[in-house]
Amino acid sequence: MNEAEARRAGLLKDHERLDDLQRGGLFIIQDPASFCFGMDAVLLSAYVDPASRGRALDLGTGTGIIPLLLSDRTDLSFLAGLEIQPESAGRAGRSVRLNGLEDRIRIIEGDIKEADQIFPAASFDVVTSNPPYMIGGHGLPGARRDLYIARHEALCGFEDVARAAALLLKPSGHFYLVHRPFRLAEVITTLCRLHLEPKRMRLVHPFADREPNMVLLDCVRGGRPRLQAEKPLIVYEEPGVYTREILEIYGMRKA
Amino acid sequence: MNEAEARRAGLLKDHERLDDLQRGGLFIIQDPASFCFGMDAVLLSAYVDPASRGRALDLGTGTGIIPLLLSDRTDLSFLAGLEIQPESAGRAGRSVRLNGLEDRIRIIEGDIKEADQIFPAASFDVVTSNPPYMIGGHGLPGARRDLYIARHEALCGFEDVARAAALLLKPSGHFYLVHRPFRLAEVITTLCRLHLEPKRMRLVHPFADREPNMVLLDCVRGGRPRLQAEKPLIVYEEPGVYTREILEIYGMRKA
Repeated sequence: MNEAEARRAGLLKDHERLDDLQRGGLFIIQDPASFCFGMDAVLLSAYVDPASRGRALDLGTGTGIIPLLLSDRTDLSFLAGLEIQPESAGRAGRSVRLNGLEDRIRIIEGDIKEADQIFPAASFDVVTSNPPYMIGGHGLPGARRDLYIARHEALCGFEDVARAAALLLKPSGHFYLVHRPFRLAEVITTLCRLHLEPKRMRLVHPFADREPNMVLLDCVRGGRPRLQAEKPLIVYEEPGVYTREILEIYGMRKA
Repeated sequence: MNEAEARRAGLLKDHERLDDLQRGGLFIIQDPASFCFGMDAVLLSAYVDPASRGRALDLGTGTGIIPLLLSDRTDLSFLAGLEIQPESAGRAGRSVRLNGLEDRIRIIEGDIKEADQIFPAASFDVVTSNPPYMIGGHGLPGARRDLYIARHEALCGFEDVARAAALLLKPSGHFYLVHRPFRLAEVITTLCRLHLEPKRMRLVHPFADREPNMVLLDCVRGGRPRLQAEKPLIVYEEPGVYTREILEIYGMRKA
């Protein structure tokens, strides 16, 4: 379905655009003025074990990018995306319909803090989250409240996200997340307290000789303590040139 | 003092050797059959802020390598090394005398678990530790008990080391440690629980494209949560060839 067809079908609004995900023929609806997905969501999707099976839930799904990418990358039979912002949830739901994935992906508008009332306890094999990274400030900046909510812990903190994952994962289920390294100590402490044991960790560095700006974590509910710290994931070979691994993740080069 | 002079002075025993640290004219006594210091101790010493002042304590000092290197690298006025194994403590003490550093470095034979009875609470500006990395097994392997104790948590666990650091550091004092990445989640959780907030972290990778095999941490007693994850420290440029940074740390190349 191209942009014109999507508009005629009432799936694409005036201010929205249709982006080609270059993966499995997937498209996604985004509002350029609102929160658009970034490399973090793509890297997180690529961090999920491709052999994952069963039911997955994405907490704070935003555009729905993670369920969409996982529908192509894995054989997960059911992918739910929970999103508190009505406009985002609506857009993600239309992206699902536009791709004809209504049987496999369900977008639900709701609050992560009430996720245990929306879904049965211990009902997911995989939970993912690309949560707001920034600690909530005291006042909300005027401009775009939707962007602020997507980036700051305004409506939920990391503790809320991890608690929802801990409640909704089956024993031995995997919680995959991406966060900023500056929050790492707090993130790990919270995960361990909730018995979401970090089993794999990968730091993402813009360049090989630079500080990491993202951290990918794969945690197992009730896992025993032993972390596999992995080789660094480097984004740029040199300014403007992606590394081979990033090109592979983006499907621009065969693995 | 060369090896022959050290033997005549009764500072070097038959089975021991004298190693040149290539730093500040320092030498160290080691027993090739017992635990000899490794790159981890050298990297940890180099991770300590060279502007550190005041009193420092090294928990489980072994050969005494860390106080010796810090005596050259910093202006710390007093460096204590606590070591439970009598032979190691004796050797470290002789290394101190051999270098004429008795006024600045004191090696104390004692148990980390009783460190708060050996030293006054909150009396150190800096605490360092290169603790045993391995979780203690059930039985002790027969061969060399001293090696086993240096490498395994036979006589103290990480919790004991961190607790001693928390008790003996002044508020805002720094606890520097090196550990294995596979213990990272547990290490960070323990540090945070004891209010030793990780402020800097650096992963050490044998090669740029390999998993890290050490992690360096700089924690502040009572610090506020915010971790600076640093660029990777790479050991080898290619097999057998150290990177420039490692050569600089070892004093083989000017920084």
